[in-house]
Amino acid sequence: MEKKITVIKGDGIGPEIVTEAQKVLDKVAEKFGHKFVYTDILMGGCSIDKYGVPLTDEAVEIAKNSDAVLLGSIGGNTSTSPWYKLAPNLRPEAGLLKIRKELGLFANLRPANLYPELREACPLKDDIIGDGFDMMIMRELTGGLYFGARKTENVDGVETAVDTLTYNENEIRRIAIRGFDIAMKRRKKVTSVDKANVLDSSRLWRKVVNEVAKDYPEVELEHMLVDNCAMQLVRDPKQFDVILTENMFGDILSDEAAMISGSLGMLASASLNDTKFGMYEPSHGSAPDIAGQDKANPIATILSASMLLRFSFDMDKEADAIDNAVKKVLEAGYRTGDIMSEDMKLVGCKEMGSLVADMI
Amino acid sequence: MEKKITVIKGDGIGPEIVTEAQKVLDKVAEKFGHKFVYTDILMGGCSIDKYGVPLTDEAVEIAKNSDAVLLGSIGGNTSTSPWYKLAPNLRPEAGLLKIRKELGLFANLRPANLYPELREACPLKDDIIGDGFDMMIMRELTGGLYFGARKTENVDGVETAVDTLTYNENEIRRIAIRGFDIAMKRRKKVTSVDKANVLDSSRLWRKVVNEVAKDYPEVELEHMLVDNCAMQLVRDPKQFDVILTENMFGDILSDEAAMISGSLGMLASASLNDTKFGMYEPSHGSAPDIAGQDKANPIATILSASMLLRFSFDMDKEADAIDNAVKKVLEAGYRTGDIMSEDMKLVGCKEMGSLVADMI
Ligand SMILES: CC(C)[C@H](C(=O)O)[C@@H](O)C(=O)O
Ligand SMILES: CC(C)[C@H](C(=O)O)[C@@H](O)C(=O)O
Repeated sequence: MEKKITVIKGDGIGPEIVTEAQKVLDKVAEKFGHKFVYTDILMGGCSIDKYGVPLTDEAVEIAKNSDAVLLGSIGGNTSTSPWYKLAPNLRPEAGLLKIRKELGLFANLRPANLYPELREACPLKDDIIGDGFDMMIMRELTGGLYFGARKTENVDGVETAVDTLTYNENEIRRIAIRGFDIAMKRRKKVTSVDKANVLDSSRLWRKVVNEVAKDYPEVELEHMLVDNCAMQLVRDPKQFDVILTENMFGDILSDEAAMISGSLGMLASASLNDTKFGMYEPSHGSAPDIAGQDKANPIATILSASMLLRFSFDMDKEADAIDNAVKKVLEAGYRTGDIMSEDMKLVGCKEMGSLVADMI
Repeated sequence: MEKKITVIKGDGIGPEIVTEAQKVLDKVAEKFGHKFVYTDILMGGCSIDKYGVPLTDEAVEIAKNSDAVLLGSIGGNTSTSPWYKLAPNLRPEAGLLKIRKELGLFANLRPANLYPELREACPLKDDIIGDGFDMMIMRELTGGLYFGARKTENVDGVETAVDTLTYNENEIRRIAIRGFDIAMKRRKKVTSVDKANVLDSSRLWRKVVNEVAKDYPEVELEHMLVDNCAMQLVRDPKQFDVILTENMFGDILSDEAAMISGSLGMLASASLNDTKFGMYEPSHGSAPDIAGQDKANPIATILSASMLLRFSFDMDKEADAIDNAVKKVLEAGYRTGDIMSEDMKLVGCKEMGSLVADMI
């Protein structure tokens, strides 16, 4: 099969980690007889430096005309980088928000699971970890506070800022359906997270999720308040299968869950629209402090490439091959600095990429 | 000194734990020659049952005319209790939001610290706990998404809900000043948490906090994005002294921090206005499942009474006496069920209250 992949290397460690993911994709192509045609576009700080904006319309067009997007990471040091002196809508992150909206990527899947090999890196006590945990956070990505109207104005001499949190039933229904669909392929449990004791948008959320649930009688649905969920993730992460939530709550909870897994450098994510199209990226950031030093962990990006093959190209065997290769490399004791522990073999970004590619 | 305390026992375990806190307050009164005059008001489910509303205006008046409020907990089981069949503005929680607003309690202080005696109950690995941690979350309590306009309406046949997140510079300034004031009495570090890469309200928040910081040259200020803060609390809670944040972020992060401390049953909180007046309550909920069984841990409420004496009545010696009594009871090995561990002595709610009172 021939497929077009838009590649966004981005800023910081982005270029290094994407290069390793492409190394792995190339190996898959060779082995399984596919052809992946890459087109690079700029997004984030590197686009600001070249075009003055974090994402051009031309770049969006290229992405739209491809079959999937592989993204590294964008942004720099918010205190020192000149990018953060610009108006908010010109900063690196604005590029990310723009591409999500323009491509209609409303369904953000963020797995957070414990790698048995990385148990030691998990911040939680052993009796809480138990046999490990494995959850999928399904975050709504194109609504809520991120895309509502906002303004800052002077009201009777007092500077006042307003952001709006809006959801309509259609936006909630389509993400809920995705959440239940995924749950059917997993352990058939959905925890819908909201703040229904305060927010109207959460009450609508809960109502629509209850309606959607009727079509999935096999799936167990529970509702949980966001503050309680922030606690439960720490107290007993094993209780979760699919967490279904709106944009801002999903931002906070998915980062908390990622850190709890202790495997941030290993966590991939997918952002999907109504078709097979999707954008795939590591859950971690651009780590400008270690950029260009061959120290970054490319595994999250490699696993994002695996998600790309599975979700956008229906290449399950190929995705399994990548996942297994990663597993074998970890079992063989190879570690980048972020997941290093005693008696393991420390490798750099490039070597880690080659090790995984060689295992395929 | 004679002082008027409004007592809100509330729902669930509320009555039991408040009774024990009053036992301790009475002992303090006797020992230090004060007189505490209590007036009970109803709030939450018990008020709904009697008056049809979660908080009457008469009850608010009584609270306003007292020197401080001691609150147990309100609310019931959200799936089974008939209170949750009512319209949102008639549910138990609406009483809590109303009293916060009516009394102008904009500054919510939520300490989250590890009790050395309860190290085992902390969910984090030993090397992360280190010598323990001790942070104070300063949450804005009368603005943001909690009190902005909201509506649910039919827009061209599609049900749509809108909540508004509003802050003006004055609301931000007064809570920031409180945060820096508290930091001056602690380790002189403020972490201001926002989502300035997305929200206008967060950008205004950051700007005003920077302005306020100029008056506190001794205090180290850092800004942190809310998603990162949710991670850092798990990764390294020791890094925090005062966390300063808006209403919804504070709700989520304070619960996460409380759970991380492993001492939820021990954590008190204060909600203050512009004067010495304040409302004091445990950080935990109403635990309807164990209500009336003499199993609840009254320590968080007892420590809330201690905060009441310290912040509203300037009774530092008296507050120290309570804090020390709690410490001694823990050192002597007494534990309620929620904090029980091997070789300790299990006691009920009443006995725990008596033990603390006797130590004073
Ligand atoms: C960079 C930022 C705008 C973004 C978000 O908040 O969505 C990031 O935190 C994420 O989670 O992908
Ligand atoms: C009961 C609820 C409205 C309340 C809040 O969200 O503020 C509670 O969670 C709290 O933190 O005091």
